[in-house]
Amino acid sequence: MPAALQALASTSSLYLLIVGQPDAIAPYLAKAAPALQQRLRVIPAESVIPNDAKLSHAIRTSKGTSMRIALDLVKNGEAQAVVSAGNTGALMGLAKLMLKPLDGIERPALMTVLPNQQKSKTVVLDLGANVESTSAMLVQFAVMGAVMAEEIVGISSPRIALLNIGEEEFKGLDNIREAAAVLKSTPAINYIGYLEGNDLLTGKTDVLVCDGFVGNVTLKTMEGVVRMFLSLLKSPGEKRKRSWWLKLLGRLIQKRIAKRFGDLNPDQYNGACLVGLRGTVIKSHGAANEKAFAVAIEQAVQAVQRQIPQRIALRLEAILPKSD
Amino acid sequence: MPAALQALASTSSLYLLIVGQPDAIAPYLAKAAPALQQRLRVIPAESVIPNDAKLSHAIRTSKGTSMRIALDLVKNGEAQAVVSAGNTGALMGLAKLMLKPLDGIERPALMTVLPNQQKSKTVVLDLGANVESTSAMLVQFAVMGAVMAEEIVGISSPRIALLNIGEEEFKGLDNIREAAAVLKSTPAINYIGYLEGNDLLTGKTDVLVCDGFVGNVTLKTMEGVVRMFLSLLKSPGEKRKRSWWLKLLGRLIQKRIAKRFGDLNPDQYNGACLVGLRGTVIKSHGAANEKAFAVAIEQAVQAVQRQIPQRIALRLEAILPKSD
Repeated sequence: MPAALQALASTSSLYLLIVGQPDAIAPYLAKAAPALQQRLRVIPAESVIPNDAKLSHAIRTSKGTSMRIALDLVKNGEAQAVVSAGNTGALMGLAKLMLKPLDGIERPALMTVLPNQQKSKTVVLDLGANVESTSAMLVQFAVMGAVMAEEIVGISSPRIALLNIGEEEFKGLDNIREAAAVLKSTPAINYIGYLEGNDLLTGKTDVLVCDGFVGNVTLKTMEGVVRMFLSLLKSPGEKRKRSWWLKLLGRLIQKRIAKRFGDLNPDQYNGACLVGLRGTVIKSHGAANEKAFAVAIEQAVQAVQRQIPQRIALRLEAILPKSD
Repeated sequence: MPAALQALASTSSLYLLIVGQPDAIAPYLAKAAPALQQRLRVIPAESVIPNDAKLSHAIRTSKGTSMRIALDLVKNGEAQAVVSAGNTGALMGLAKLMLKPLDGIERPALMTVLPNQQKSKTVVLDLGANVESTSAMLVQFAVMGAVMAEEIVGISSPRIALLNIGEEEFKGLDNIREAAAVLKSTPAINYIGYLEGNDLLTGKTDVLVCDGFVGNVTLKTMEGVVRMFLSLLKSPGEKRKRSWWLKLLGRLIQKRIAKRFGDLNPDQYNGACLVGLRGTVIKSHGAANEKAFAVAIEQAVQAVQRQIPQRIALRLEAILPKSD
């Protein structure tokens, strides 16, 4: 709720439907400025899908849950996007069932935009919407990533790379090599070859494509390392006695470094987008703080404004062979 | 060569056979202290396997190369370990052909030991010796990792985890779930469940097991993020003018932080071990500096002293069902 009010305050064109238990929402609502209250409606939901629920069970018993109701609002055109910090598997499964993949897309992918060392941004997908991916799916991810890099990051003719365990052509798994062959022979795609995990943040590519298992591991590895560095910066464990001004100065400098590194703080770039569906779905970290959740809402606004699903559909139509 | 001399100086029981072009080695040899020269012999090699050589071609044309000659020395008992910074694929392929896997091991795995936030160390494997892994291979990796954690890190009854995209039992790929079932029902293995990429450095486990593709990506992602942080610390890009003492202080603090982070600098922990063969093979980073290569040589010394191959063979015999 605090994140919702923050997002409403910063985006004047935003209307929010809050799906959840009215009793939990009411205290926040009461404190909100009347101007913000006008762009906010509470939709009551009886229950929540537990975070540890198995996908099939979660879907079977989803009636009346906040997630199901929120997705229904998008399906019926009452809302244009869903933002959820709930059970990732359930969100992806339910969203796919209810919002349906676009023509030419077998399965949606989870995507995020990471800051890179070239002071630009890199689109990375799939981050775990699918455990395994065929070469056709990897090609579809590449097309969706290209549209996102153009529309969201603002890069024309974005470079596309496949994440692999070596840069030589013969390296890697069959599905990756097959996807490489297709991408290479697709003129509308600016395919630049394979990159390795150490290039996640170097900015050598604008779009990095991988299967969901590998994408999940690489993103979470990055998050783990970044969190470790940030925690080290916060508690440097100084044992030697120092004069107060030295300590103060040290803290100032550490703060400045933390600010630079903060770019990669999961709390800042929060919000992965489920792309490939007939609607916008943003997955926020379960542990997202207020600011991070507001970022996720902003991402949804951007995706709706840029008409991402429509643009992906058009691009697919132009590039990919018809499936029927 | 400088790394070799450094290693000889620090380990008095070490004898080194340097396989390579004598002309390239001679100038270094001439400058070495006579005491070190006595524990060093140059074995001439005509050629080197190129870094971009395809595995099958590299193996077919390996006769006379430094890598082949070095592995022959181990095979014939003239040396106890090989340390190489050459073509990783060729090293793994040739080593497997020439040194043969231990009984009960289908394929060797590439392993490293990473420092963790609990001030202990985590054994991670496979880092890319195999592109795909069956559940049986993952179980074999777990057993080898346990032996390494006991012998090299000094942990009794080390905790073993499988790297996955969620901690719930039903998550992940079939081979991982099958391996989990086997590990759970093996009393000699202290299996603790799944961990995700963000736990690579948290120290929640002593051994982290994954397939080679995922291991390669997670390790390289970590390296990329660490290198980015270290480079940011080195060149903070100060634009505002500051007095000299403020600058000096800033640099001192950055140095201290860099020292703490240095634990994870690929130059420091360099040296991945190819485990599961009847001999010790250490793979150094291709871009390793002198200090890092010396670390790789020390790892070889340690593996030989702790009789790692023999201990793995014994453990496998005790735990795994006989393959014949």
